[in-house]
Amino acid sequence: MNEAAITLDGWYVLHDFRTMDWASWKLISKEERQEAVDEFIAFLDKLQQADDNKTGSHAFYTVVGQKADFMLMTLRPTVDELQELEAEFNKLTIADYTIPAYSYVSVVELSNYLAGESTEDPYQNPYVRGRLYPELPRSQYVCFYPMDKKRDGEDNWYMLSMDKRKELMRSHGMIGRGYAGKVKQIISGSVGFDDFEWGVTLFSDDVLQFKKLVYEMRFDEVSARYGVFGSFFIGTMLDGDKKAAFFNI
Amino acid sequence: MNEAAITLDGWYVLHDFRTMDWASWKLISKEERQEAVDEFIAFLDKLQQADDNKTGSHAFYTVVGQKADFMLMTLRPTVDELQELEAEFNKLTIADYTIPAYSYVSVVELSNYLAGESTEDPYQNPYVRGRLYPELPRSQYVCFYPMDKKRDGEDNWYMLSMDKRKELMRSHGMIGRGYAGKVKQIISGSVGFDDFEWGVTLFSDDVLQFKKLVYEMRFDEVSARYGVFGSFFIGTMLDGDKKAAFFNI
Amino acid sequence: MNEAAITLDGWYVLHDFRTMDWASWKLISKEERQEAVDEFIAFLDKLQQADDNKTGSHAFYTVVGQKADFMLMTLRPTVDELQELEAEFNKLTIADYTIPAYSYVSVVELSNYLAGESTEDPYQNPYVRGRLYPELPRSQYVCFYPMDKKRDGEDNWYMLSMDKRKELMRSHGMIGRGYAGKVKQIISGSVGFDDFEWGVTLFSDDVLQFKKLVYEMRFDEVSARYGVFGSFFIGTMLDGDKKAAFFNI
Amino acid sequence: MNEAAITLDGWYVLHDFRTMDWASWKLISKEERQEAVDEFIAFLDKLQQADDNKTGSHAFYTVVGQKADFMLMTLRPTVDELQELEAEFNKLTIADYTIPAYSYVSVVELSNYLAGESTEDPYQNPYVRGRLYPELPRSQYVCFYPMDKKRDGEDNWYMLSMDKRKELMRSHGMIGRGYAGKVKQIISGSVGFDDFEWGVTLFSDDVLQFKKLVYEMRFDEVSARYGVFGSFFIGTMLDGDKKAAFFNI
Amino acid sequence: MNEAAITLDGWYVLHDFRTMDWASWKLISKEERQEAVDEFIAFLDKLQQADDNKTGSHAFYTVVGQKADFMLMTLRPTVDELQELEAEFNKLTIADYTIPAYSYVSVVELSNYLAGESTEDPYQNPYVRGRLYPELPRSQYVCFYPMDKKRDGEDNWYMLSMDKRKELMRSHGMIGRGYAGKVKQIISGSVGFDDFEWGVTLFSDDVLQFKKLVYEMRFDEVSARYGVFGSFFIGTMLDGDKKAAFFNI
Repeated sequence: MNEAAITLDGWYVLHDFRTMDWASWKLISKEERQEAVDEFIAFLDKLQQADDNKTGSHAFYTVVGQKADFMLMTLRPTVDELQELEAEFNKLTIADYTIPAYSYVSVVELSNYLAGESTEDPYQNPYVRGRLYPELPRSQYVCFYPMDKKRDGEDNWYMLSMDKRKELMRSHGMIGRGYAGKVKQIISGSVGFDDFEWGVTLFSDDVLQFKKLVYEMRFDEVSARYGVFGSFFIGTMLDGDKKAAFFNI
Repeated sequence: MNEAAITLDGWYVLHDFRTMDWASWKLISKEERQEAVDEFIAFLDKLQQADDNKTGSHAFYTVVGQKADFMLMTLRPTVDELQELEAEFNKLTIADYTIPAYSYVSVVELSNYLAGESTEDPYQNPYVRGRLYPELPRSQYVCFYPMDKKRDGEDNWYMLSMDKRKELMRSHGMIGRGYAGKVKQIISGSVGFDDFEWGVTLFSDDVLQFKKLVYEMRFDEVSARYGVFGSFFIGTMLDGDKKAAFFNI
Repeated sequence: MNEAAITLDGWYVLHDFRTMDWASWKLISKEERQEAVDEFIAFLDKLQQADDNKTGSHAFYTVVGQKADFMLMTLRPTVDELQELEAEFNKLTIADYTIPAYSYVSVVELSNYLAGESTEDPYQNPYVRGRLYPELPRSQYVCFYPMDKKRDGEDNWYMLSMDKRKELMRSHGMIGRGYAGKVKQIISGSVGFDDFEWGVTLFSDDVLQFKKLVYEMRFDEVSARYGVFGSFFIGTMLDGDKKAAFFNI
Repeated sequence: MNEAAITLDGWYVLHDFRTMDWASWKLISKEERQEAVDEFIAFLDKLQQADDNKTGSHAFYTVVGQKADFMLMTLRPTVDELQELEAEFNKLTIADYTIPAYSYVSVVELSNYLAGESTEDPYQNPYVRGRLYPELPRSQYVCFYPMDKKRDGEDNWYMLSMDKRKELMRSHGMIGRGYAGKVKQIISGSVGFDDFEWGVTLFSDDVLQFKKLVYEMRFDEVSARYGVFGSFFIGTMLDGDKKAAFFNI
Repeated sequence: MNEAAITLDGWYVLHDFRTMDWASWKLISKEERQEAVDEFIAFLDKLQQADDNKTGSHAFYTVVGQKADFMLMTLRPTVDELQELEAEFNKLTIADYTIPAYSYVSVVELSNYLAGESTEDPYQNPYVRGRLYPELPRSQYVCFYPMDKKRDGEDNWYMLSMDKRKELMRSHGMIGRGYAGKVKQIISGSVGFDDFEWGVTLFSDDVLQFKKLVYEMRFDEVSARYGVFGSFFIGTMLDGDKKAAFFNI
């Protein structure tokens, strides 16, 4: 009854959501804004180098609605590196024109519910490595939400047997697999790290697939009876000239 | 048991609620305020062109009470266009005198609970198209609220069979139909997009009909047992000279 | 089971709670403060004219504790008039020294649970009219709170039969009647208008009667099993010279 | 089943929690700070006169942690006097360097659960008067928390019979009595006045007794099944020179 | 049924989380920043003296994500000393560039669930003293979260018998013991002191151990059925030159 799921853990993840203080941003001169944007884009370029070197990954999206203006998601081998990137961002000029909106700390994780049985070291398996140390796709849209498994009266995920949980997760995983090629999912664990137990980050070139996937899963027992969801954020990619245009007044 | 409802999805929707910072607004000169209002009205006129061209729709209402001072609701074929309109608004002068109050991201949706069976492509059906890509009415009053279907112990919508849900939704829909001609309803889905599962936007020339409709529905099992409601916002239309008068000091 | 209660609806109501920004208020000169107070008192005098003409009603109380510094409650035949009064208040100088604290939008309502059966038009009945279009008393104390009827597992008000609800409400009403002459109650409905289903405003010259009434009702099944309560606000009347004294530094 | 508990009610109580805006406080000159502190101490001295005259009582404590910097608790025969003291505080210079943190409005109360049966007027009984109109002790530590009795499914205090509630309260009271001489308890009722049903203020010269008392009670059925608790605040007394030292930079 | 657990209580604990106001911090000159940092480091050095003298202990970590920028945790024999350290911090220059983010007040505690039976005074036992008056380790990572035991319908910890609680805690404690040498746990009680019943502070040189420990425990009945968790904070140690570097612009 007390048999915990074993997880494989990869890169640490920081989702950092920021809101622009547009009124203050307009108060400084065009030149000052240009300098601040150039400095920020240089910072993003440096992040891209880690992607290129496969020593980490990142994604930068503008968020739709008032929850935030943009999300910067960074993945690194240690939580210290995430902390340093956060500190570095805070010292950029553009940070002075942003207001913290939300953040999430987690680590990319594969649970053993879906694992095959094998004697090899999974951390040496190229497929597993590709999932634990992912190169974030450059999809047009992103969706992020944190979630818990419910512990409420009869609906208590953590009181289920390992076999029952495995069976439920298998059917849950089947739905996800139906979206292969349409939605890329990054599951990251945050038990002991942040306020929910998992973070889910979805990438797609068709934003409607986020709704279809999450809605279909909601009828699956894992979500229907045991899912507890936090806030949902969706964003569209800011790449190339769109980055500078976004900040341009 | 796990049979999800299929939805038809139309235009993407952004509800944007803003509160005026009246004290700052009074600090600038009458001329500056006039320029800012003129610029904002030009922005609203541009939105109206999309309505006229049937490439989108919008509504602009002042909100009663302290939750917000006004709501701007925009509908567009892509979420990117909504994001661009939001960015454009933020760059207007008047935006510097507003404080974000609430926003909601969704997509106009028709659920298959009420759908007739047919072999034709529903997206080609003129009636369906009229509902998925609606021209928002110019009614005197608006009501907006987000909602969830409950998943709590015995009251778990997502654990009901498709047949049971269909039956319940039919009776629920009958109540709505009783308000035909009095209240126009836009249902938009937000699973995976925002913090509740649906947004409901009602339009009427008689504000009391909102109360009658929502109250009557609350006794229907779909709402009574399974409805979870967020905040309710009501507003009155700002058209013609009322727009400028609203901002006039 | 789905038989909704019919309501009679009277004047629309806005409860507007504001907190003074005392530090800013002290920064301006005594003369400026005097002008602002004079302007605000002229606004309150104008509200009083509507009371005198029986075209509306209002109440102005200072709120005890930090939830707000004062409450302005206005009743009008249309929600548009409430919106205009709110806009007018926001354009007063004194508004710049207040911070929005809470507001509530509702409509005075009589439910049919307690109604006698009759064929006459209730809106022509003088007693009913007196309750739907009330002249707010000038009592020394006010109490306001919003409330819902619970929909939780076995305790679901909206799944009870009309007969059961009628029976429960009758006993509930008896308690209220025991306070006749001591407490005046205004019940206003807000389903579809604001975040709770009702607002309750109590007036009395003995503040302890609020506690006695609400506490006694809490043991009645309607409240004990089905009552869900929001924040409670109590205030003392600011009339005559007390208004100016309240704002005097 | 609907038999409410009768209460005896004494002085009205306002708990006023404030956070210092230390950064602004440091911006003014040493002389200005001195004047503000002198004015505030004169205000506290005036409160002390009411204690001396037994026309009211007060307590002033600094709060540990970030919830507030200090708590001013005042007791008076009418709620109007509390309101006037609050207004008077807001007009002090030091108030401009404080931020409202929390407040609670209640009235000292004795419930009849523990009352002996007697034909005398309890309000003339010296013991009862001592409890209803208490002289707050000058203990080294204070603890304040608001609480409700639960109304949730099978755990519904207000659906219990009077006899059952009496029996439960008797055992609950026994625990409190075990702390006689170590902890002084002031129970104040706030049904209809503020967001919880009671406020509990504890005084002791040994801060650990608060934890022991509240923890022991938590295993008693009254708290275990029926207790719902708000925030807990603890503070240490600021008397004599400590008051000035607290504000000294 | 009403048999409370006895606790042994050691040093009082204040967890103080602060967010830097980076924009203001950048506005002052490099020299002013240097002076403020020097003053703060001198304050931390003074805290370290208490560690060296074994008259208290402290830990200073930067927090990952937006919940806070750093956490200062202090342990002292009295709550008054904690209050004085808090006041002293508030009077430092650097405090003016911080925003309070969260705080927690508790006392290091050992529960008797795990205690051996003995006639000796536990406060004289060196092992017990080492746990009640701990020297905080200089581990690379810290994790803090507050927690409650649930009181909800059938899942009510405080209605369990002492024997049942003892049995459950024994199995729970076994999991903790499996992390000996990898994670150091400080359990502090806060019933009557702060909003949750306990605070848990974990130290490790491997941040992933926090996740493993908390996740494994979540499947244990004590957490699965009875655990209610607040926010989780994780941080990395700022020692030596890293302190100054963190504040350096």
